[in-house]
Amino acid sequence: MIVVMQRGATQAQLGEVVRRVEELGFRAHVSQGEERTIVGIIGDERPLAAEPLEALDGVEQVLPILQPFKLASRDFRSANTVVSLNGVKIGGREIVVIAGPCAVESREQIRETAYAVREAGARVLRGGAFKPRTSPYSFQGLGREGLELLHEAAEEVGLPVVTEVMSPADVELVGEHAQMLQIGTRNMLNYSLLHAVGRSGRPTLLKRGFSSTIQELLMAAEYILSNRNYNLVLCERGIRTFETATRNTLDINAVPVLKQLTHLPVIVDPSHATGKWQYVGAAARAAVAAGADGLIVEVHPHPERALSDGAQSLKPEAFVKLMAELRRVAEAVDRTL
Amino acid sequence: MIVVMQRGATQAQLGEVVRRVEELGFRAHVSQGEERTIVGIIGDERPLAAEPLEALDGVEQVLPILQPFKLASRDFRSANTVVSLNGVKIGGREIVVIAGPCAVESREQIRETAYAVREAGARVLRGGAFKPRTSPYSFQGLGREGLELLHEAAEEVGLPVVTEVMSPADVELVGEHAQMLQIGTRNMLNYSLLHAVGRSGRPTLLKRGFSSTIQELLMAAEYILSNRNYNLVLCERGIRTFETATRNTLDINAVPVLKQLTHLPVIVDPSHATGKWQYVGAAARAAVAAGADGLIVEVHPHPERALSDGAQSLKPEAFVKLMAELRRVAEAVDRTL
Amino acid sequence: MIVVMQRGATQAQLGEVVRRVEELGFRAHVSQGEERTIVGIIGDERPLAAEPLEALDGVEQVLPILQPFKLASRDFRSANTVVSLNGVKIGGREIVVIAGPCAVESREQIRETAYAVREAGARVLRGGAFKPRTSPYSFQGLGREGLELLHEAAEEVGLPVVTEVMSPADVELVGEHAQMLQIGTRNMLNYSLLHAVGRSGRPTLLKRGFSSTIQELLMAAEYILSNRNYNLVLCERGIRTFETATRNTLDINAVPVLKQLTHLPVIVDPSHATGKWQYVGAAARAAVAAGADGLIVEVHPHPERALSDGAQSLKPEAFVKLMAELRRVAEAVDRTL
Amino acid sequence: MIVVMQRGATQAQLGEVVRRVEELGFRAHVSQGEERTIVGIIGDERPLAAEPLEALDGVEQVLPILQPFKLASRDFRSANTVVSLNGVKIGGREIVVIAGPCAVESREQIRETAYAVREAGARVLRGGAFKPRTSPYSFQGLGREGLELLHEAAEEVGLPVVTEVMSPADVELVGEHAQMLQIGTRNMLNYSLLHAVGRSGRPTLLKRGFSSTIQELLMAAEYILSNRNYNLVLCERGIRTFETATRNTLDINAVPVLKQLTHLPVIVDPSHATGKWQYVGAAARAAVAAGADGLIVEVHPHPERALSDGAQSLKPEAFVKLMAELRRVAEAVDRTL
Repeated sequence: MIVVMQRGATQAQLGEVVRRVEELGFRAHVSQGEERTIVGIIGDERPLAAEPLEALDGVEQVLPILQPFKLASRDFRSANTVVSLNGVKIGGREIVVIAGPCAVESREQIRETAYAVREAGARVLRGGAFKPRTSPYSFQGLGREGLELLHEAAEEVGLPVVTEVMSPADVELVGEHAQMLQIGTRNMLNYSLLHAVGRSGRPTLLKRGFSSTIQELLMAAEYILSNRNYNLVLCERGIRTFETATRNTLDINAVPVLKQLTHLPVIVDPSHATGKWQYVGAAARAAVAAGADGLIVEVHPHPERALSDGAQSLKPEAFVKLMAELRRVAEAVDRTL
Repeated sequence: MIVVMQRGATQAQLGEVVRRVEELGFRAHVSQGEERTIVGIIGDERPLAAEPLEALDGVEQVLPILQPFKLASRDFRSANTVVSLNGVKIGGREIVVIAGPCAVESREQIRETAYAVREAGARVLRGGAFKPRTSPYSFQGLGREGLELLHEAAEEVGLPVVTEVMSPADVELVGEHAQMLQIGTRNMLNYSLLHAVGRSGRPTLLKRGFSSTIQELLMAAEYILSNRNYNLVLCERGIRTFETATRNTLDINAVPVLKQLTHLPVIVDPSHATGKWQYVGAAARAAVAAGADGLIVEVHPHPERALSDGAQSLKPEAFVKLMAELRRVAEAVDRTL
Repeated sequence: MIVVMQRGATQAQLGEVVRRVEELGFRAHVSQGEERTIVGIIGDERPLAAEPLEALDGVEQVLPILQPFKLASRDFRSANTVVSLNGVKIGGREIVVIAGPCAVESREQIRETAYAVREAGARVLRGGAFKPRTSPYSFQGLGREGLELLHEAAEEVGLPVVTEVMSPADVELVGEHAQMLQIGTRNMLNYSLLHAVGRSGRPTLLKRGFSSTIQELLMAAEYILSNRNYNLVLCERGIRTFETATRNTLDINAVPVLKQLTHLPVIVDPSHATGKWQYVGAAARAAVAAGADGLIVEVHPHPERALSDGAQSLKPEAFVKLMAELRRVAEAVDRTL
Repeated sequence: MIVVMQRGATQAQLGEVVRRVEELGFRAHVSQGEERTIVGIIGDERPLAAEPLEALDGVEQVLPILQPFKLASRDFRSANTVVSLNGVKIGGREIVVIAGPCAVESREQIRETAYAVREAGARVLRGGAFKPRTSPYSFQGLGREGLELLHEAAEEVGLPVVTEVMSPADVELVGEHAQMLQIGTRNMLNYSLLHAVGRSGRPTLLKRGFSSTIQELLMAAEYILSNRNYNLVLCERGIRTFETATRNTLDINAVPVLKQLTHLPVIVDPSHATGKWQYVGAAARAAVAAGADGLIVEVHPHPERALSDGAQSLKPEAFVKLMAELRRVAEAVDRTL
């Protein structure tokens, strides 16, 4: 960490900074430049992040040198982490496609979809039982009944399941019905939930907050990892920008950035990242070409009747076509699918 | 709601849209323009929001006509709502200042601050016991002990208290120690928490998500109001933009926009909105001049030793000076403080 | 265009809106809903865009129905436009790679790069002579001399050239040395320049403003097209968001959106879109997979000595490797490269 | 400037960084920390900004220590700059209000507005003759004729004039008709224009780019100042964010930030910053309370007939009322108006 003093800061102010740094158990290294004096702090600065050195008189700014996450970093673990769901491995050479409806709506709907996506080559089934919705007047999911229908359909077709958990109190219940817990974009900063999911030890899919930086995503991951749960997969699902032609902006750059910074697997959600089924294919192909370890795609047998996210859901026949395209792109980047 | 058909949409596609709209219990009004055909949907469109009409073939876009919130709107209640905390009224002619430290750190710290802010004219005491922190390695608050210290100090100086609640399971506990529950910016979309706080019926301060639109803030309010809890105050606390000179960008426009759209009181948090104590005064004066009903300001007796948010906390003497300035601005806009 | 009246708007206010619409030469179609009255405007609304109907009393909002661009739209021309530079065709089945240094720095540097990129398979040479720089103290380009060196090197290796023009006064000069004019991201809204380039009739590469929407990009294109210059290629080069891990955020969604909305060719600049050479490969592969018609890539023989954009420039050997990867991805999406 | 080496960077890589820094004429100061080795660069780093040290092998990141602007900084000139237009002083104790229509439309319109705004207390007249418009099909301004009408009206009422210049070629012409040149938000990064206006020596109003950081605004100012033109006023006019309830988001924080960083006067444009006349008053009052040195407000005698920006223009009677409110707020912050 580097403390930059204001032009004209006094020796007394400088002394106070040094004293405070040392009081906190670090060594301070003063360097008098022509334009500014700076104080370098020697040691692992992470516990210092919270220390309000900026509030000391005469300080202009404080620059961190290290990334604030540890367990998620390649410094901590250089080899890729592989997360396994009933034998399906995420983070290896195979690109894993997760597919299914936004929400579980009925036994028939989830069964029909489960068969269709398995047939097309999906390796994991998705489906929401607890649905976070912008409006309290919108369909909120079938809850426990939805979990049961999802579980039943998944067993029948032989796929593991991922589904969202919205509250610490539901972690156990959801864990009984699904092989993987999903933390949705709105809950990436819900620390009670991060801790609860971390403590459960269950495989987890952590979606990036729609306005969270890559660093913040890794800090949220750190909450789960610090509970000794390393069964963690990260998901880029589009961020909020000024562009309104699409529901979100897919931050495709996040794929190589994350692959460089962390050992955790990284998948992409092209459905939320675009918000329109017409663009899902292009976004999915881009994700595979950029190096993603998997995809999570919304598929619905009758999008125009879907109780949520109809506009961005692929029909089963469109999903079949997409899978064929993705296989070709995967091969072009030396992966399988 | 207006459905705009694609150029070249067929009569069959148009018929399907009309049929679907009618099936959902609405009347459809077709209007053939020179460039596009549009279908107007007659009736309260809000329950329709979730219907994926965009997924129907031949549809170009769907335009909502009405704001999606009801109970929060001036259509529903035209007069200003006033929320009362032990006789302190938020939403009336008086501008109410809430002040205190970011986090409760010790009995001495919260007592010292409570006396100082009351002396300066604050009407409500703030202080965090459960702290949402970006890093799992940062101070996370004193929890239950913090609540007790806060409660004790507030009783001693005779001020009501507002403090954050982060989990549905804590609503009751926090409610026993505080007159007002705060839902923080990271939890604005935590629907389990919104419902729990709504059901509690307790006075609530709902902070805008740092990347949520004004409309989304009002939809989050709708979650609380739909639980028949009208003791609700909204708080603009800065949004995330590309600007990095400040921690957030204070969306001062949100004040008149919210005052126009909703009957709920609107306050501003100039501490988080700027992130640097040097700018808090300007932001606070601006908020009062723009029509805010109150302020929530971070004050700490020793910011350079604060366990969180030191850089944006005012020292007691700076807060006294600010209160004097704010009184003059309040008078200039025909308010008291 | 749909005019939505306020709840409680009077008949007189409604009458005034209708009268004003008709005065402007359009027909108005009034529809009284249960919650709001709306006025539909029949006819090509585009010239109306500027009319401040929102300023009329009783009007709540005005919703456009049509996209505001005409000549750039698929409505106007459904087949893909192909732009030809000395026989190199942009917009056809072949994906065209443009490569070269950010800035022309010396005869040797541009010659060395020109040979290297041609060898690797680039079809067009890029290089800046007039450089827009954030700081007046940074290298501003060699100007006319740079143009001459660029022209000379391009002739020698037999590639057409694209280079930026920053001022209407330079359009002719630049046009004498380059087959294609580039309008940079900072000048996308420089209307004097758009007109001048449009009038020149020369092939043009229009880069998206770093904070411009896709619709605004198409409106800027409209300025050029309305001067009857259809030799126009659009370029997505990253947008400004809250994310700071990369210089810009590549809006990969813009590729399928633009391909749907416009007949103009669309290329991607992975160098500016990421800002770090380590991420250029992933972004470039993603662009090809998403359907881009070409790429513009920064290559420099000695990035660590580059006078601008060193951090995002590929060395020639990395570029050779990237081209091999891109060929495989191109084939996977049925294109050549 | 601080160069942070990667974990595991070799001594050879470190040596290469030091060699390169010294080659560029600076002294390098190496500091081996426990987690990272850093190289401090001693001296005025600004000319280095362009050097791509990040491209050197083994470098993780490069952190600047100094603000990149010089002449605009308080380091360079600590006292406030005051810009004078025919005796009207911007940057002193008086808050100066500039008012007038978005565009000059006719002799009658500009005359009527000029009388009205002078009567209400405006000290400078604004009006556009060259209008940058998103659509080539919108009204583009009256050009030279508009300048003449504006000049004539201003002379008649005895106010100085500010009007936009869009092209270097027009600087002289506009300068003959106006006391102050305006560089609009779309042209903040138009360096040819910045240089031309700088060379003219004329009083200039530089509007912040709608997606430019405060630092970039000061770098644009630096272009003008480096041409020895210190008659410069900066204008915050709203930035682009995800919020769509208003046309732009007024970055009110920018006022205290700019007043701290620079000696140049800072004014606010509440009309563009909100985009709706209903919110202009709140934004204007906030700007004065936050410490702005002036305002630029759009006023039109018949907004519903305005050829541009009707929705955000105040009628003369609303402007009179606003001026009365602003006088009270100005007094409350010890300013006059």
